[in-house]
Amino acid sequence: MSERIEADYLIETAYALDAAAEAMAGEQSSGTFVPVPGETPELKARAAAVVERIEDLGPVAAASLPGAGKPDGAHRLAQVTLSWPLANTGPSLPNLMATVAGNLFELKFFSGIRLLDIRLPDAFASTYAGPAFGVAGTRRLSGVEGRPLIGTIVKPSVGFTPDETADLVRTLCDAGIDFIKDDELQADGPSCPFADRAQAVMHVVNDHAERTGKKVMYAFNLTGEVEEMRERHDLVRDLGGTCVMASLNGVGLVGMTALRRHAELPIHAHRNGWGALSRHPLLGFSYVAWSKFWRLAGADHMHVNGIANKFCEPDESVIASARSCLTPMFEDKPCVAMPVFSSGQSAKQAPATWAALGSTDLIFAAGGGIMGHPQGPAAGVASLREAWEAAMSGAALEDYARSRPALAAAIGARA
Amino acid sequence: MSERIEADYLIETAYALDAAAEAMAGEQSSGTFVPVPGETPELKARAAAVVERIEDLGPVAAASLPGAGKPDGAHRLAQVTLSWPLANTGPSLPNLMATVAGNLFELKFFSGIRLLDIRLPDAFASTYAGPAFGVAGTRRLSGVEGRPLIGTIVKPSVGFTPDETADLVRTLCDAGIDFIKDDELQADGPSCPFADRAQAVMHVVNDHAERTGKKVMYAFNLTGEVEEMRERHDLVRDLGGTCVMASLNGVGLVGMTALRRHAELPIHAHRNGWGALSRHPLLGFSYVAWSKFWRLAGADHMHVNGIANKFCEPDESVIASARSCLTPMFEDKPCVAMPVFSSGQSAKQAPATWAALGSTDLIFAAGGGIMGHPQGPAAGVASLREAWEAAMSGAALEDYARSRPALAAAIGARA
Repeated sequence: MSERIEADYLIETAYALDAAAEAMAGEQSSGTFVPVPGETPELKARAAAVVERIEDLGPVAAASLPGAGKPDGAHRLAQVTLSWPLANTGPSLPNLMATVAGNLFELKFFSGIRLLDIRLPDAFASTYAGPAFGVAGTRRLSGVEGRPLIGTIVKPSVGFTPDETADLVRTLCDAGIDFIKDDELQADGPSCPFADRAQAVMHVVNDHAERTGKKVMYAFNLTGEVEEMRERHDLVRDLGGTCVMASLNGVGLVGMTALRRHAELPIHAHRNGWGALSRHPLLGFSYVAWSKFWRLAGADHMHVNGIANKFCEPDESVIASARSCLTPMFEDKPCVAMPVFSSGQSAKQAPATWAALGSTDLIFAAGGGIMGHPQGPAAGVASLREAWEAAMSGAALEDYARSRPALAAAIGARA
Repeated sequence: MSERIEADYLIETAYALDAAAEAMAGEQSSGTFVPVPGETPELKARAAAVVERIEDLGPVAAASLPGAGKPDGAHRLAQVTLSWPLANTGPSLPNLMATVAGNLFELKFFSGIRLLDIRLPDAFASTYAGPAFGVAGTRRLSGVEGRPLIGTIVKPSVGFTPDETADLVRTLCDAGIDFIKDDELQADGPSCPFADRAQAVMHVVNDHAERTGKKVMYAFNLTGEVEEMRERHDLVRDLGGTCVMASLNGVGLVGMTALRRHAELPIHAHRNGWGALSRHPLLGFSYVAWSKFWRLAGADHMHVNGIANKFCEPDESVIASARSCLTPMFEDKPCVAMPVFSSGQSAKQAPATWAALGSTDLIFAAGGGIMGHPQGPAAGVASLREAWEAAMSGAALEDYARSRPALAAAIGARA
């Protein structure tokens, strides 16, 4: 990798493509709208962003976003790649954000602008820790090999007391679950204080582990200020817990890096709020670009939604996200994060997920698919494991379900 | 203020308005898509979000965002207010973010969803510091009373060495400037290390202060990891500096709070990246809502763009943002932040800015309007002061410019 930072964008503009691309490059480096004396050729050679590539993707019918300078002009789509010298920012994630995803979203040149991908010099890999556990560490701590971790979320999302949470965890442990996470709405609310919940839950998890040898991985949502996160992490570690969770858009890059530098447990990264950054296809970020910031900062697990999910994201976008999490960022520091499939997931989605991803290195989290299974939570967990066995062996779910009542009930077939 | 958190949203939906509002409330509190045993009436009474108000704003022609569940249905706009018990999250900004601006952006119920405003219980005011300096502290440190601070940005944005930056600062100090800021692209890049720049710049600022009695406020961009920001802050303070700056979307809420808890200087908050969160009018955040998070976290100065700016934002949005920064958030902790007008600002915008805002409690920052003034930077600064004198006295710029050559040149009139 060179000493330049590269970023790919999807743009929509009524201006000439080269002029629009140069406007981006100028705004995000040494360019000035009004020429100033200091903007010398030497300075430009040192600091200017370079337009590396422009690919014209053809005309569009109308402007996608308001505020463009030529709203009635003929708009075109294009993919543009810019590069910057590393010397402008150094290997700093918060400053990289200002450089590749700063003021440019507000430029009048564009009626659409979205960051698609970033490629970073190795200096970033030596500055940031990346995930400490990733796939291998998560498998080691959870004792699950050769298949996805079967997971679930504490539901209702918020409102349980610590003891009620622990009661649900007992049910889930008895059902054979591999992974449980707090909801992102529950961190340290007065109705369910973090410390009380951690103690109550870990009592159950540890008791189950002593009896069965299986330590269920519970991701405790420690989202909070830096010192709060550190204290909560230490409590979980001291109680024998094996995972912590943080809301990325709440803690921010600097909060995430501070957590990672302190953490001795895997960090389960929740993307709530992601829709604001991504839902318009011509604004904000692709997950591929955005998740690279968090993977480098240290996320071990990254939420990617799920196939046939309850939200608005198409399946191909979900799979692209999951694939990118499993694709190395640097040769010597892959920063591979375990993708977390969730949102309306059940046994039915296992074959399509396996077919599209070709990997079992994921957490497959279901809520209603487990707690709502007609034969109870143990059958819910069993149905998910069986669905993945079927998928991995190439058997049709209906065939595999013939001798497996839990799977049969989950897919509405006859066992 | 009650013990409930309130949030207002603009929504667009093809579903019944009450069903859509209930879906938001459910997703962001104790609701579950598949009913689970624990969702009892007692738990709902304790934790459920409540739909407080729905105002139907009428039909729209077509769906604004993709991914909605009924793309071909008849879509309506509405304003919806939800409330949550404080006991769900406690007074925690990162967890508030997950609650009021979390998964709901991805709900299929909506073809448009934007957070318009938030109202918080007093517990937030006692937990977070808010701005330590605000308007009064900024005026005290800069010695500017009764008019806006006249400011500028180091341009070119990035590429200057520390000595070249200091040379420009000398020119600007001699020109009579009140306030200078680093560009958001320049924090601690190898080509212009923070410590070297701070030393070179403060040498000039201190020398100018000794000679003239005027200490120019320079906002040093210390955006970085928590420890880096603390070290850089301490260096600026030790050198006699009076302001630091951070990129909000780079450092995040937790980084900002960590900086504020350490800081002894005003924090100049840069909003670069804001366009990704706001540019589509039916997605993301209004500035009024978003800025409240940062004001409470401790921002003393908040960027609001400017009238007739070079970006895509309409003037009425700019003024609404600035007004909100000057509107108290809590009775005992107003969290008033000084709005920073910038982007293509010159003498010409002073009258409209004064007329719309009715306050001089702002930083009025111009780049080309100062360095590009035909009579030089001192005339550029003078023209901005004169334009504000004219505006505040009710004189037309052209009349006021008759005896003032700097202003005359700035507005293209004859002195």
